[in-house]
Amino acid sequence: MEPLRAAIVGYGLIGGSIDLALGRLEHPPVIQALDAGDDLARASGADLIILAAPISANIRILGELGRTLTHDALITDTGSTKEATVAAAEALPANLQFIGGHPIAGAAAGGRAAARADLFDGKPWILTPDRRTRPQQLETLRLFVQSVGAAPRVMDAGEHDRLLAFISHLPQLTISALMHVAGNAAGERGLALAGPGLRDSTRLAASSAALWHDIIATNRANVNAALDDLIGALQRLRDQRDADGLAQVFADAASWKERLDAS
Amino acid sequence: MEPLRAAIVGYGLIGGSIDLALGRLEHPPVIQALDAGDDLARASGADLIILAAPISANIRILGELGRTLTHDALITDTGSTKEATVAAAEALPANLQFIGGHPIAGAAAGGRAAARADLFDGKPWILTPDRRTRPQQLETLRLFVQSVGAAPRVMDAGEHDRLLAFISHLPQLTISALMHVAGNAAGERGLALAGPGLRDSTRLAASSAALWHDIIATNRANVNAALDDLIGALQRLRDQRDADGLAQVFADAASWKERLDAS
Repeated sequence: MEPLRAAIVGYGLIGGSIDLALGRLEHPPVIQALDAGDDLARASGADLIILAAPISANIRILGELGRTLTHDALITDTGSTKEATVAAAEALPANLQFIGGHPIAGAAAGGRAAARADLFDGKPWILTPDRRTRPQQLETLRLFVQSVGAAPRVMDAGEHDRLLAFISHLPQLTISALMHVAGNAAGERGLALAGPGLRDSTRLAASSAALWHDIIATNRANVNAALDDLIGALQRLRDQRDADGLAQVFADAASWKERLDAS
Repeated sequence: MEPLRAAIVGYGLIGGSIDLALGRLEHPPVIQALDAGDDLARASGADLIILAAPISANIRILGELGRTLTHDALITDTGSTKEATVAAAEALPANLQFIGGHPIAGAAAGGRAAARADLFDGKPWILTPDRRTRPQQLETLRLFVQSVGAAPRVMDAGEHDRLLAFISHLPQLTISALMHVAGNAAGERGLALAGPGLRDSTRLAASSAALWHDIIATNRANVNAALDDLIGALQRLRDQRDADGLAQVFADAASWKERLDAS
């Protein structure tokens, strides 16, 4: 049996970690590592093409691959939103099949230097097939995801984007807004008096807008719905005159936190 | 020279840790440990009385001490808000002097069992003298705070409450509201797909409303002003049509986060 030929386009934290994780296999695939700006004809002959550049670059690359490649290939991506990329893939020619993917793995630092062979071990990796997906191709992608150590989870692209708005995009925007507001009110000398609560809660405030711009822009309606829910909850905490509302929100939050930590 | 006689009223994480920290001294004071419900006549003869019960209990105990004690004593507290307690202390008789205090030290767990001798080591401990405070008494309290390992910082009670609304009370309400909203939208199975961002950001969501009720209730105006600032920032993130607002908030947040971590 011929070894799988895989091309990784975009070689940062995620692309680099996929490469390192595949390197642990007894019979690793032949890997072609490309940067987002490379000539995509170099992906010719690859059975599996993994787009690991930022979302807007992935969408541009999808179009270029459609114009460049004439052989049969399965394409997936690793972007944090799925509907926009799945929609862009509908224009691909018949020789190229696309199934969206999203590894739920983060690291304190991004970039190629932070890549690790065990980044995906035991972590969920969501796959978003659609009505055009052939079962055999979904199975190929499941095996690939398992081969890098992750646990594949199948979900509709729309469901993915709605869920991630609440468990990833809203937390990011909230923590950045909190640090922005607290810093501007307290100033540097005031911040120095902060206890462990603020320090522990704000790791995400170090995130770069460059990384998040595409995510928010391609999930705007869901992100706005999530922001509306949080703004509503904060307004109720602001307006309440009795202690019941506060106690209710705290009890509910503590209960969800316990389930989150147990999962 | 006679050893200092100190009474600690309310023996949880903070009161217990003060006791343990004082026990490290070469010549520790004589400590009388009282629960918030004990007969306060047992504090008779104490030079320094430290109120380490919840804020509303401290305020009640201040009144009882005023009716019970006839000797001269300096009273301080360890509550997370200062204006309400300082105002209550204005009714004390002339033999009792009060200076507000707030050790900025937290632990993942509360309660007497979590008490540690090193809880305050190197941490700020804010003191809020007012126009009636005698310099000699402030000096006594400074030395006491240093003797448990903390770094005394002097501040006006109103300034303290405004600052803490932004660096402590707003973060707590925000994280509880975020976990409440994300949990209700995602459900248990959705939360299981959360990456490290949500998990790392929500330690404060385990906080109990019982602890926070008094803090919010005694700092309502400042907390509401902080909530208004955050709600405004979230609304701008929601309404923006271009990327500049997002980039600005993220850059500002990352800059404050860097200064917070360096402090």
